[in-house]
Amino acid sequence: MNQITQPPLTGANLVAGTERRASGAVTYTGFDPRTGTAGSVAFHEATAADVHDAATAAAAALASTHAWPVARTVELLTAVADRLEDRAGAIVPVAELETGLDAGRLTGELARTVAQLRMFAAFVASGDHLEAVIDPPDATRVPPRTDLRRMMVALGPVAVFGASNFPLAFGVAGGDTAAALAAGCPVVAKAHPAHPSTSELCARAIVDAVAAAGFPAGWFSLLHGTGGEVGGLLVEAPAIAAVGFTGSLRAGRALHDLAAARPRPIPVYAEMGSVNPLLVTQAALRERGDAIADGLAASLQMGAGQFCTSPGLLLVPTGEDGDAFVDRLAQTLRDGPAGCLLTVGIRDALVRQLEQTRSLPGVDVLVEGGEAGVAPGAFLTATLLTAPAAAVVATPDLVEEHFGPASLVVRYGADEERDAVLNAIEGALTFTLHAGAQEGAELAPLQWRMADRVGRILWNGYPTGVAVTPAMHHGGPYPATTSSLHTSVGTAAIRRFQRPVAFQDAPQEALPPALRDGNPLGIRRLEDGVWTGGRTPKA
Amino acid sequence: MNQITQPPLTGANLVAGTERRASGAVTYTGFDPRTGTAGSVAFHEATAADVHDAATAAAAALASTHAWPVARTVELLTAVADRLEDRAGAIVPVAELETGLDAGRLTGELARTVAQLRMFAAFVASGDHLEAVIDPPDATRVPPRTDLRRMMVALGPVAVFGASNFPLAFGVAGGDTAAALAAGCPVVAKAHPAHPSTSELCARAIVDAVAAAGFPAGWFSLLHGTGGEVGGLLVEAPAIAAVGFTGSLRAGRALHDLAAARPRPIPVYAEMGSVNPLLVTQAALRERGDAIADGLAASLQMGAGQFCTSPGLLLVPTGEDGDAFVDRLAQTLRDGPAGCLLTVGIRDALVRQLEQTRSLPGVDVLVEGGEAGVAPGAFLTATLLTAPAAAVVATPDLVEEHFGPASLVVRYGADEERDAVLNAIEGALTFTLHAGAQEGAELAPLQWRMADRVGRILWNGYPTGVAVTPAMHHGGPYPATTSSLHTSVGTAAIRRFQRPVAFQDAPQEALPPALRDGNPLGIRRLEDGVWTGGRTPKA
Repeated sequence: MNQITQPPLTGANLVAGTERRASGAVTYTGFDPRTGTAGSVAFHEATAADVHDAATAAAAALASTHAWPVARTVELLTAVADRLEDRAGAIVPVAELETGLDAGRLTGELARTVAQLRMFAAFVASGDHLEAVIDPPDATRVPPRTDLRRMMVALGPVAVFGASNFPLAFGVAGGDTAAALAAGCPVVAKAHPAHPSTSELCARAIVDAVAAAGFPAGWFSLLHGTGGEVGGLLVEAPAIAAVGFTGSLRAGRALHDLAAARPRPIPVYAEMGSVNPLLVTQAALRERGDAIADGLAASLQMGAGQFCTSPGLLLVPTGEDGDAFVDRLAQTLRDGPAGCLLTVGIRDALVRQLEQTRSLPGVDVLVEGGEAGVAPGAFLTATLLTAPAAAVVATPDLVEEHFGPASLVVRYGADEERDAVLNAIEGALTFTLHAGAQEGAELAPLQWRMADRVGRILWNGYPTGVAVTPAMHHGGPYPATTSSLHTSVGTAAIRRFQRPVAFQDAPQEALPPALRDGNPLGIRRLEDGVWTGGRTPKA
Repeated sequence: MNQITQPPLTGANLVAGTERRASGAVTYTGFDPRTGTAGSVAFHEATAADVHDAATAAAAALASTHAWPVARTVELLTAVADRLEDRAGAIVPVAELETGLDAGRLTGELARTVAQLRMFAAFVASGDHLEAVIDPPDATRVPPRTDLRRMMVALGPVAVFGASNFPLAFGVAGGDTAAALAAGCPVVAKAHPAHPSTSELCARAIVDAVAAAGFPAGWFSLLHGTGGEVGGLLVEAPAIAAVGFTGSLRAGRALHDLAAARPRPIPVYAEMGSVNPLLVTQAALRERGDAIADGLAASLQMGAGQFCTSPGLLLVPTGEDGDAFVDRLAQTLRDGPAGCLLTVGIRDALVRQLEQTRSLPGVDVLVEGGEAGVAPGAFLTATLLTAPAAAVVATPDLVEEHFGPASLVVRYGADEERDAVLNAIEGALTFTLHAGAQEGAELAPLQWRMADRVGRILWNGYPTGVAVTPAMHHGGPYPATTSSLHTSVGTAAIRRFQRPVAFQDAPQEALPPALRDGNPLGIRRLEDGVWTGGRTPKA
């Protein structure tokens, strides 16, 4: 059978272009969740010295490149994209072995990963991300106005913690890394221990791209660690300026708390998943109930339910149409295949959580998920629970995310019952409305109330699937993220890793080209209140 | 003599349009720092119920106005500006009595306060702050692209903690309040206990404007409190979504830590002052040493040194020109008047801190400041210290802010000595270079290194004075602020209090007008990668 070993895998930490395997270091391996088979490569947990060296090398690398034009960043992003694309044949099979996700999905995910790097390259090439603003001097004002010019600069070295559920698009070379590199920041990535080989392959693509693009080797490092220790040291490293994280609420909050307690606090952009409520109206059921049930079943089973936007709470009207809808959804899930979860640990955690949830007052089981007949490996069939609205309002545990193939149906009668359930939901990434064709205006107020607690509102769709485009917002109020001001997907994701600097009365020769007279870069700038120049890329 | 009592002063907390004076509440008064005379109005410390009610009323107010057009916000900002302007004759004398700042300065500060409200009104009227982005659907893509539209919305109720040193421009109706209101957020302001009467007058202008503009009374509240308790309760109130603060590092950090430890963490935008290094080169000394010494003396004495951008560390070349420069600066400060500090507490804290600083190894006194002959009141003459570069590098206490009329001269020989001192400086709001006419290119690398640790770089100027314009950045890395991504001055300050929301496939009638087809508001939008519409205001 296949082993998780592919040509260039070494199990080393990659610190500023060097391989680090401390003698006596703890090692770990990946596992194929479909079989439980361990990989043959021993990955070395990073030492405190590895963490320190990676962070300080990143800071030194940044300090040596201040005068570099943004064209260099475009070159680097493109070089990473090219290498990932070239190595798809090596990366996809390894990711498949480590995650149980199928090759089709992973091939698509790699394409998305490459596409988002190229999107950032085009965005950076446009110079729009510099947000250049120029206030010309005005001696006639009281007090006289000086010459003032502002632009965005790199925030500093970024620590990236990728997700288990998107080993490529939200992994070592994923969205956070792409956004940080686009902002002009070096990156120290922590490999996800559920896919260390995939992490190393993606990291090597970046390491090679860094060298090819002529960046200092400290621009990128990869660290391994299974517990919280390596990640904690990384977040506490003085040279680290920001943290990008995708994962669980528990881990994200822990990193947030560490970062906030530093002598010099730094921002943590943690995207921690959410319950993603989905509401179906009576009119929608009448118009297209079967289609919604089928679409929803597909959305729920996507990636074995391991999408951060997986719909985890379904509000369905009481009555016959609602009964038929729930029956159809339940039957489709019952007939569906068992999904392979990313790790045995994730499966076990979900099984335990579902046991607890099922024991809560009022909860009934509509579809009995389970492992029966599909061992070995981390397979699980979908679970569909139901609970009365009053129980959901009374029991906060019922509106928590169940990461994996599980969802909760809540039937509602009056609008007040519907609203009470929605009010019980904490910050979420998405809220989905399935409405009748004539209900847009009527539901607008409900939509606005939900806009207070979610980042994206979908009409008549399914929240799984997050387009990488300028208008995307993938974020939301806590506990969906630790910073509701920012998105982790789309061009705006770059803002997390930038800060403004203003230059007052600087001589032309000391100004960065982006702010010089005559706009030598031809970028979009706000000059004396007038937008000029620019070549904003088409999405 | 004048008492600190003016027509409408009540000493009450103003909670959602009602006056609150809890029976048995602790009270306090303002003081005239020039005489030590207490004011006659008893200000009532807010109770936990006052804090709770203010925060929840703010949240309820916001929830009731989702469908309001931005024109309402423009109306509110304008109404506040109008009232402050109309009441200048009442506000300025009261502020003078409470702060010791002179009427000329306060009249100018009120004009600035009004101007920044009007600037935000014009900015909001333009719709630029909504950052509308539209990605049209595209069925030909794989996967098909849905219709996605994003805009900024209000983050939620904002707690504002004003500064002692700018009782108007950074006070209850100051920059943070203006930015929060502009973002569409209700505000709960904490009155600064050093100027409670000024706070109440400004708060009443806002309360009246809220009523006149037809906003719910909960849109604005004022709370009193002298210790940390009221502020702590406010930051911990679940309904509060963000905090704006201007003041000391100690207080700002305490609020940051409280906010980070909440069950639902919220951002704290604390602007905490800084040491503001200023470097003079040998060439600059030769070209205009006397003029720089005189300009610097004026900058140091501005507001009795109580500007957050006051230059606190002066790097001057060794040698004769440097000697003459320092002598002239010292003599001007020696001849200068005693400044009245904002409170006796601030004066005493500075005196204590200076005693400690003077006792550090290598520190000498160039100008002996003191209180002699100017009691009663909080008067103090300027202190100028000096220390060798090596001592500054070895002693972090030497590069800490001395809030008030005090600065430290450090003489440097070789570039390495200069750089070692600059490297010892933590995050600051500003860095100022006084350079020779031909030194721009040569000093550009130094400027870039300093851009890593400050928010604004000035050439041949003085950091005191912060223009309210689109290109301003008033912020910087910690400990200058708790969030280096943001500015507290200029139009970009609004971003601190906004978050994005995306709408996917929403029917036209459910979309906010800012995102509807045909751009009914005529605002600037990014549509399918093309910037359209807009009427960006001239600065």
